[in-house]
Amino acid sequence: MTRKEIEESYRGLQLHICQALEEIDGQARFIEDPWTREEGGGGYTRTISNGRIFEKGGVAFSAVHGPVSEAMKKQLNLDGEYFFATGVSIVLHPKHPRHPIIHMNVRYFELDNGATYWFGGGIDLTPHYVDRTLAVDFHQQLKETSDQFSEAFYPKFKDWADRYFYLPHREESRGIGGVFFDHLDETCGLTKSQIFEYCMSLGHLFPKAYKHQVDSIQIMEVTEKELNWQAVRRGRYVEFNLLHDRGTKFGIYSGGRTESILMSMPPRANWEYNLELEEGSEEAETLAFLRKTHEFIK
Amino acid sequence: MTRKEIEESYRGLQLHICQALEEIDGQARFIEDPWTREEGGGGYTRTISNGRIFEKGGVAFSAVHGPVSEAMKKQLNLDGEYFFATGVSIVLHPKHPRHPIIHMNVRYFELDNGATYWFGGGIDLTPHYVDRTLAVDFHQQLKETSDQFSEAFYPKFKDWADRYFYLPHREESRGIGGVFFDHLDETCGLTKSQIFEYCMSLGHLFPKAYKHQVDSIQIMEVTEKELNWQAVRRGRYVEFNLLHDRGTKFGIYSGGRTESILMSMPPRANWEYNLELEEGSEEAETLAFLRKTHEFIK
Repeated sequence: MTRKEIEESYRGLQLHICQALEEIDGQARFIEDPWTREEGGGGYTRTISNGRIFEKGGVAFSAVHGPVSEAMKKQLNLDGEYFFATGVSIVLHPKHPRHPIIHMNVRYFELDNGATYWFGGGIDLTPHYVDRTLAVDFHQQLKETSDQFSEAFYPKFKDWADRYFYLPHREESRGIGGVFFDHLDETCGLTKSQIFEYCMSLGHLFPKAYKHQVDSIQIMEVTEKELNWQAVRRGRYVEFNLLHDRGTKFGIYSGGRTESILMSMPPRANWEYNLELEEGSEEAETLAFLRKTHEFIK
Repeated sequence: MTRKEIEESYRGLQLHICQALEEIDGQARFIEDPWTREEGGGGYTRTISNGRIFEKGGVAFSAVHGPVSEAMKKQLNLDGEYFFATGVSIVLHPKHPRHPIIHMNVRYFELDNGATYWFGGGIDLTPHYVDRTLAVDFHQQLKETSDQFSEAFYPKFKDWADRYFYLPHREESRGIGGVFFDHLDETCGLTKSQIFEYCMSLGHLFPKAYKHQVDSIQIMEVTEKELNWQAVRRGRYVEFNLLHDRGTKFGIYSGGRTESILMSMPPRANWEYNLELEEGSEEAETLAFLRKTHEFIK
């Protein structure tokens, strides 16, 4: 498993996912921006906007390398001199508030030409309104895919996602979680190729999992109330990504391409001081749901 | 100069500023939320919304104290066991895109009951559209107030603001800057009382400076283009506050009150992937202006 093979597979994964998402949308197409990084490497950022389903989203591939800068050492705790990183990152903001925001990332990281390496990744779902049945379906799909590699993965990575996608200052989860893992190497009991295959399987699951959500949600004409709540939840998404997200931090501090890193930003977000929700409303119920951790699979 | 005196003066300053801002707005009134912090202290958050001039804004006072937590030590580089902090923080998002966003902060910080202390603060202006004459007026006012205390202050603190209110990932200033200072104590040549008086003078200048901007700007009926650009600039404001602002970080990591810390968020912000501006447009000119550092006073 060379870095070149991983890089090429991830680029292929990006193209596969874009095609599948275009089919789901049925209207908008991805545009591709190639870019290069002065210190080494580059990427292809693919974005979609104003679609039937997707209001704004991106599927970014990058493969970057170069010296580990002082900023990276400090901000990212990297113990090495030269890094290589490749990955696919996705955030999709749907137009309709009843459709969920979804995020996926798979990444491979090497320090000092492979002296150390690790994989990271995950998929998580952020519904503006929580549908418990669909939340279970989503977790079930993640469990099935994970179980093919190790039965230890789903429980461990689901907990990891619960901890990672949490906004302490809001005492809220970003959404219903999913799976998240980082620094995964052979010490987990799988070979490097097997971990790589797990990442690829998650990548292939991604469009299927989102299609299942969209196909299962009955859409009515959108209301002002729904749109406002969507904008509030998108505000929380912004808070998470700029305050906490490691991928965003890595991108910013490693001198990545800003437009590619911040393609995760929603098209529109609102903040209201001390927002009050009607008791018993769907919005209040969603918020109450996000304030607890849930086991979706018993 | 006891901490109690400083705390009381800052609370008085908050009330003075709110009254002056209500006069500028001529319509909306501040509402006050008192809050307490479990580990010690609390504050009064005053917010204004849906006014004639101000769409959303806040003038927050707080006086908090308690043990320096591990998170604070790590995130804020604090070398002490017990802290006290009091200050006034203001962010105002005007309704009309031709009116500028403005921010002010004065703060006093003590470690270990005064074993070390310092003042920090500043005022800076973020016009959605830059008017060069009004930018000069703003800096002139800051210089005049600062010169009364030390002629070294304005040049030093203006540069500090240029460096502080900068978004490296965008290669843009947040706005036209102003003054910014931190860790100011007797080593600057002034007594503790004099530094305190400087902070108070900046506080008193604040509503006058904003009134001068509003009074000098001719408002026409707002256009969609202006509103969209305002939402984009507000997006940059969000990026600065969540990625870089020390006050926001201090608040979040010291277990402050989230609604008070994030009252700085705009009511609405937009992000567009790879936004393209019409060559020669006012928006493109503003962006070009923000990509350079300017000396406003020769």
